Amino acid sequence: MSGGRVIVLCGGVGGARMAGGLAAALGPGRLTAIVNVGDDFTHVGLRISPDLDTVLYTLSNLEDPAKGWGRRDETWSFMAALAAAGGPAWFQLGDKDLATHVLRTEALARGERLTAITARLAEALGAGARLLPATDDPLATLCETDEGPMPFQDYFVRRRCEPALRALSFAGADAARLSPEVEAALADPDLAALVIAPSNPYLSLDPILAIPGMRAAIEGLKCPRIAVSPIIGNKAVKGPLAKIMAERGLGVTAETVARHYEGLVDVFLADPADAGFSVPGIAVHACDVMMADRAGRARLAREALAAVMVAS
Amino acid sequence: MSGGRVIVLCGGVGGARMAGGLAAALGPGRLTAIVNVGDDFTHVGLRISPDLDTVLYTLSNLEDPAKGWGRRDETWSFMAALAAAGGPAWFQLGDKDLATHVLRTEALARGERLTAITARLAEALGAGARLLPATDDPLATLCETDEGPMPFQDYFVRRRCEPALRALSFAGADAARLSPEVEAALADPDLAALVIAPSNPYLSLDPILAIPGMRAAIEGLKCPRIAVSPIIGNKAVKGPLAKIMAERGLGVTAETVARHYEGLVDVFLADPADAGFSVPGIAVHACDVMMADRAGRARLAREALAAVMVAS
Repeated sequence: MSGGRVIVLCGGVGGARMAGGLAAALGPGRLTAIVNVGDDFTHVGLRISPDLDTVLYTLSNLEDPAKGWGRRDETWSFMAALAAAGGPAWFQLGDKDLATHVLRTEALARGERLTAITARLAEALGAGARLLPATDDPLATLCETDEGPMPFQDYFVRRRCEPALRALSFAGADAARLSPEVEAALADPDLAALVIAPSNPYLSLDPILAIPGMRAAIEGLKCPRIAVSPIIGNKAVKGPLAKIMAERGLGVTAETVARHYEGLVDVFLADPADAGFSVPGIAVHACDVMMADRAGRARLAREALAAVMVAS
Repeated sequence: MSGGRVIVLCGGVGGARMAGGLAAALGPGRLTAIVNVGDDFTHVGLRISPDLDTVLYTLSNLEDPAKGWGRRDETWSFMAALAAAGGPAWFQLGDKDLATHVLRTEALARGERLTAITARLAEALGAGARLLPATDDPLATLCETDEGPMPFQDYFVRRRCEPALRALSFAGADAARLSPEVEAALADPDLAALVIAPSNPYLSLDPILAIPGMRAAIEGLKCPRIAVSPIIGNKAVKGPLAKIMAERGLGVTAETVARHYEGLVDVFLADPADAGFSVPGIAVHACDVMMADRAGRARLAREALAAVMVAS
């Protein structure tokens, strides 16, 4: 592991915490986070990348520690004025957070790639790790629900995941290309490990895995590949994961998640209470996977890196 | 005057105060402000209309009473975050003010006219008067300075009017059209008066007057036309007006301003100390034209409306 690089695939809050723990454990410049962009959308003319921003703020130590997303010590004057002026109030945009969206939107309009914009923001804010959107191409998670199809943020934020989810699709995924930076990171001979963060497998990881070439690249890796369970004690740590699994007729278990990653990971970290299962080709490793606080992140990062050493 | 409508032509702070005083004196629905858009520009991807916003906030009783522009009780989290993320810091965008720019930018991108967007904002914020951009077409004030040409906001804000101004031009003016709403307001048979606010004649009024048809429409009005002096005691009340007049080799006097409006106004209101001149076709009326506070605005509005009655 000395000097080796680590990739973490992640979505929002849980992924950001995992990335933060790994970045702190590895030290500057060794972590590359490949982040879901299926949640990205345009709102009041601004291009919002919720997962990239959550990871950006967390790695830069700027995240709201209570919510897990958005910025700490945030103010909300914009939202109040937007609502008073007749604008939409269902998606919260903090005053500080807005700076990110405004700069991103303007740079995209100038023709800059999301990857380059994200790198500049990460540098400016002191993220201390590489942040790569999984693709620079359009990719939008669409939710097929019992109330009909709806864009991801309509389902996730506006409707608070209340409609039953029947299916997910990733518009644009077939034509999307891994960015050159993502391809290079996955082909890096110094790559020591790939970690799939305990993000939602269906909402956060599947959009990344839907990009042509991503699965094959992960399958072809020589280094250990590790996933961390987002299910603890048959419950989701956060968000709608358990509800979605139940709506899909899947058991709300760590095993369901491990099977979802079959062929993509060698090691699966699960809580001791959930670790009593086996999946072909995957070593299930029991450990405390809860990241309740910064100490929890650090502990899970050490567990993951130790598992890499064991598997190497 | 009973039930008659009044048009005020205006730029930013001084114009907004005049508009506010007239709107309060006339009561709801009788004032139409036709506002300069030569200062409008795009900054960090957002379409900013400084004069429209100053008039909007002032009419809606939301303006910062100290600065005269921007919003009262404003917060500045966005600017701090923008600078920290590497964005430009020279143009101040308050958190509440941003809501206006974001909504405007998004609506323009959807193809809506600035006039319609402005009307919706004025309605939402309770402006109590009509706000009309002078045109919906591109119109940009360009400053020819001793340091070369520069866009208006570069001269006005970034460089704080320090370069010597050699000439002004209004890009797009030749092709710009008065909006249908402006044309209708000027042709309204109930129009009782047109007031040229004590805004900067060269920076704020000339861009409006440069739109083809505007001068002829004003020249053809049957109702009294009144201008208010922005010069008091041979000094500009605010801003770079005196500096610009001196750089143009013009006397810093109310008379210079009155001559600038020759043929366009019947009455010119000037401070008693400045009123000792005559211009053919213009009745110079001496009165206190300072708007130091809300009472001053109200007093000046009554002076202007009284002068209309005298001239009718």
